[in-house]
Amino acid sequence: MRAPLRSAEFEEELRAIGRDRYHDKHAFHILMHKGTLTQGQLQAWVLNRFYYQKSIPLKDASLISRSGDIALRREWIGRIIEHDGTKPGEGGIERWLKLAEGVGLDRDYVASCEGVLPATRFACDAYVHFVREQSLLEAVASSLTELFAPDLHRTRIDALSANYSFANEETLAYFRTRLIEAPEDVTFGLAYVLRNARTREEQTLCVAALRFKTDVLWAQLDALHHAYVTPGLIPPGAFVPERAS
Amino acid sequence: MRAPLRSAEFEEELRAIGRDRYHDKHAFHILMHKGTLTQGQLQAWVLNRFYYQKSIPLKDASLISRSGDIALRREWIGRIIEHDGTKPGEGGIERWLKLAEGVGLDRDYVASCEGVLPATRFACDAYVHFVREQSLLEAVASSLTELFAPDLHRTRIDALSANYSFANEETLAYFRTRLIEAPEDVTFGLAYVLRNARTREEQTLCVAALRFKTDVLWAQLDALHHAYVTPGLIPPGAFVPERAS
Repeated sequence: MRAPLRSAEFEEELRAIGRDRYHDKHAFHILMHKGTLTQGQLQAWVLNRFYYQKSIPLKDASLISRSGDIALRREWIGRIIEHDGTKPGEGGIERWLKLAEGVGLDRDYVASCEGVLPATRFACDAYVHFVREQSLLEAVASSLTELFAPDLHRTRIDALSANYSFANEETLAYFRTRLIEAPEDVTFGLAYVLRNARTREEQTLCVAALRFKTDVLWAQLDALHHAYVTPGLIPPGAFVPERAS
Repeated sequence: MRAPLRSAEFEEELRAIGRDRYHDKHAFHILMHKGTLTQGQLQAWVLNRFYYQKSIPLKDASLISRSGDIALRREWIGRIIEHDGTKPGEGGIERWLKLAEGVGLDRDYVASCEGVLPATRFACDAYVHFVREQSLLEAVASSLTELFAPDLHRTRIDALSANYSFANEETLAYFRTRLIEAPEDVTFGLAYVLRNARTREEQTLCVAALRFKTDVLWAQLDALHHAYVTPGLIPPGAFVPERAS
């Protein structure tokens, strides 16, 4: 049995995953940040990413439902409340729907998740199943992509603001809010993982969980890129942007 | 409440899904059948499709585990036996590994499922979860892509035989065996669905289940096409064909 990594080494191994595999490096995001995505391509992204947003409270509730640790539950429940809000018209899901309206999509169509790519569903559902079925420690570790999210959100806010007329306070509110929420959330998650992965085997499982999560994010962009950019082959039944857009 | 479709109409609705959405029409298969896929691209297909093969007995065992109907269990268990064989060196999974060796892949590497595209895992795992979580009727309905498989297998045998030197009795044994097995399996499955979907609502669920299954197959080819054909962007950690091949 190998000795566990020291905390700083283990943290570095987790952070290295972001440098190597986080989806800020994906071709689809590179086009978005250059401002060269068409309105239709952005619509496809917003529509599909809504399915991911919709899945997040489900995986967070699953995680809470598996923990006997009241401190974890008290902390983690904040994520659900951030995402769902406490009344209609509030919360991260609502802010995403405002973005959807901003890019010219029908709110009810987006909320229905019709037209979402099957590959998006498979990837997001894999995340929900992972959190439900793997250990609680791995479930927490899989949330640590939030370590890498703020930089991406800042880049995205700047790029969308510079290149797209729909970008304003209201449509970009989701990202601005996440700039504040994600670092708070991840501080707890990272400390939890560093403290609770006590053996080298547990550390290895945490690393694999975070890699899995980067795969979940990357696969969603692969599917978008294939369907709407290159070669642009939209699978049967999925959203077809209007020609004009 | 709408009246149920007559049996022949319902069957026609199921068969129409094959004409509209079965993966024989996918760009990746079209290249395969034209004989223009490189050895490396074929390797990627064989490697990824192995993960699907590996998932099939899991979903079939799940299905049996949920049925109180001894006739269904007696029939369905044959699928697991076909796939797993009754001793080492036999069965569909073994025949697929023979194909893998034939296209120049290392048997142990393929069996390990390292290098499989995350999107392949997400799609196949979605199928396993579907069979575990949806109704037994929907689980059976999702198997009915076998209605459309024999034509594809015949086309594939001819195309691989005509275009690739690895094609011989041994490497193509998987497909030849499925030409016999699939029609036997699907006769039972189709009769079961036609008999047990008694309301229009149940018929609609069966149609959705079969559409879901065509999505599972299509998404696997989308991922292969994106990674290994156009634009050829292989996601982090996935199989990279050797340049020479």
